[in-house]
Amino acid sequence: MELVSLPTLRRVAVCGGTHGNELSGIYLVREWQKRKKREEGAGPVSVVMVMSNPRAVQQGLRYTETDLNRCFTQASLSAPVSDRTPYEMLRSRELNALLGPKGSPKAVDLLCDLHNSTANMGLCIISYSDCDWICLHICKHLQREMATIPVRYIHFDVPPNEAYSLESVGKHGFAMEIGPQPHGVVRADIYAAMQEGVQLMLDWIRLFNSGAKFEGGSVDVYTMVRNIDYPRDPHTRSITAAIHPELQDRDFCLLHPGDPLFLSFSGETLRYKGTEPLYPFFINEGAYYEKGIALSLARRRKVEIPPIHSERA
Amino acid sequence: MELVSLPTLRRVAVCGGTHGNELSGIYLVREWQKRKKREEGAGPVSVVMVMSNPRAVQQGLRYTETDLNRCFTQASLSAPVSDRTPYEMLRSRELNALLGPKGSPKAVDLLCDLHNSTANMGLCIISYSDCDWICLHICKHLQREMATIPVRYIHFDVPPNEAYSLESVGKHGFAMEIGPQPHGVVRADIYAAMQEGVQLMLDWIRLFNSGAKFEGGSVDVYTMVRNIDYPRDPHTRSITAAIHPELQDRDFCLLHPGDPLFLSFSGETLRYKGTEPLYPFFINEGAYYEKGIALSLARRRKVEIPPIHSERA
Repeated sequence: MELVSLPTLRRVAVCGGTHGNELSGIYLVREWQKRKKREEGAGPVSVVMVMSNPRAVQQGLRYTETDLNRCFTQASLSAPVSDRTPYEMLRSRELNALLGPKGSPKAVDLLCDLHNSTANMGLCIISYSDCDWICLHICKHLQREMATIPVRYIHFDVPPNEAYSLESVGKHGFAMEIGPQPHGVVRADIYAAMQEGVQLMLDWIRLFNSGAKFEGGSVDVYTMVRNIDYPRDPHTRSITAAIHPELQDRDFCLLHPGDPLFLSFSGETLRYKGTEPLYPFFINEGAYYEKGIALSLARRRKVEIPPIHSERA
Repeated sequence: MELVSLPTLRRVAVCGGTHGNELSGIYLVREWQKRKKREEGAGPVSVVMVMSNPRAVQQGLRYTETDLNRCFTQASLSAPVSDRTPYEMLRSRELNALLGPKGSPKAVDLLCDLHNSTANMGLCIISYSDCDWICLHICKHLQREMATIPVRYIHFDVPPNEAYSLESVGKHGFAMEIGPQPHGVVRADIYAAMQEGVQLMLDWIRLFNSGAKFEGGSVDVYTMVRNIDYPRDPHTRSITAAIHPELQDRDFCLLHPGDPLFLSFSGETLRYKGTEPLYPFFINEGAYYEKGIALSLARRRKVEIPPIHSERA
């Protein structure tokens, strides 16, 4: 493929605490905010560290009134405000003013939003695009360099206007999702993986801005196809089964028709009834019980990415 | 040791949802409540299944206003009530009326309260006594019979009046604590272990009531000595370190003076400064961040238990 020239990435935002009980990003942002005070002005990239939902962080909850990470559609950002508008809807506008406005030339060049999952996800780059060469090259860099954790690229096939999460505010953007870690807990291994991931991303950006050329290649992209809910009692809506032990923790291992999916609390195995083998992820994510998602399923394909360099080169 | 005769255990309570985000006990109690309707009146033991904190369960939170499992001291149970008394303080009185009153002949013979931990605890029997032969014999039975999980006995050396948790309402009582499981998540393996633990306990009680004699022996008892908090920023009180990766998940592995304890977010290893090797447990329990407990430390000793049978024999 032909060499592609892309604008340099001068303004980068790293956000943590978009969900107030996902602790790795919260402590990482706090630590980097301290360090940044000491290193102010060093290097050609301006990196802003943002605590996205300080009120939820303070309370140790995912959110206080509504999920902040669903408030960044164009419709949400421009809906009228009243006295009863949830805190997170107001906070999403503040963040959009600080880091966007979404879709405008004033938006940050790259937005990386830090998340944790209770699922055995490893490190995932989650993006709304399967042809954002910046995000895909960063993913490839992390896949090559990360020492202790698998790195995968998840694609949510949603148009920009309907993109609902914070990273959609940047010109380029992705969520960095790392697990498994219980919500409300910080594990040193997961913290270290996130720190390494963010450091590698910033190293890559500095290299890119300095004019380095990055070879093309291919990246496995997992495009989200659909979600599966838990079996539920038809009257109470209470769940009646857990993820099957043979599926638990096996994120990104191909699920075939007929494979065990759930084990009911009375001991019955329920099997995957789909006709196409697909890749499960977000298996038994704690935050998704209320959203009616027991796991998500993705189709995998190889995406060829071109060699790139920055326009200054 | 001489054979000891003890009263039969006619009324047993199994409680779940004392903490509304510890899901194994919640789903177990719901499942057994369904089953119980079908099996009503079977067997010589009356087993009542109780959802302890339905409001917190409904909200998926540990508690709504205050930790229910700290509301069962004699002082709390007899404190005056006002309009501003927290829900859980009122609920503790309801539970005390239903299952107690604590310390009275009307109390249930045995109370087993089901809990989950984010720590790698295996199955723990947690009791306020190190000479309750019923609890210790049940522990021994589980140690012998449990297929997939280690079973340990933890002793909180607190006098009955100051015993603060629900199980203290029964004539005999213990918490059954199983982990690791993130709060707000149900894992099939942890659910199965809890189900097996409860079933084995009830089997043992039926055998005991039928007049079977149980041999004496010894049980390793872990008596809680003290808690250690996370290192914290002196101004913000925010934690500045995570449990060290060499200690994470190593509950009940002896911690020696000088062993790594914490890894600070800036990369510094902090070591255990105690002078006595002790056994850590509740390592990195999610619910204890707010309580200022990073881990607990116990001293282990062998307790000799006598052979027992029920008085009817």
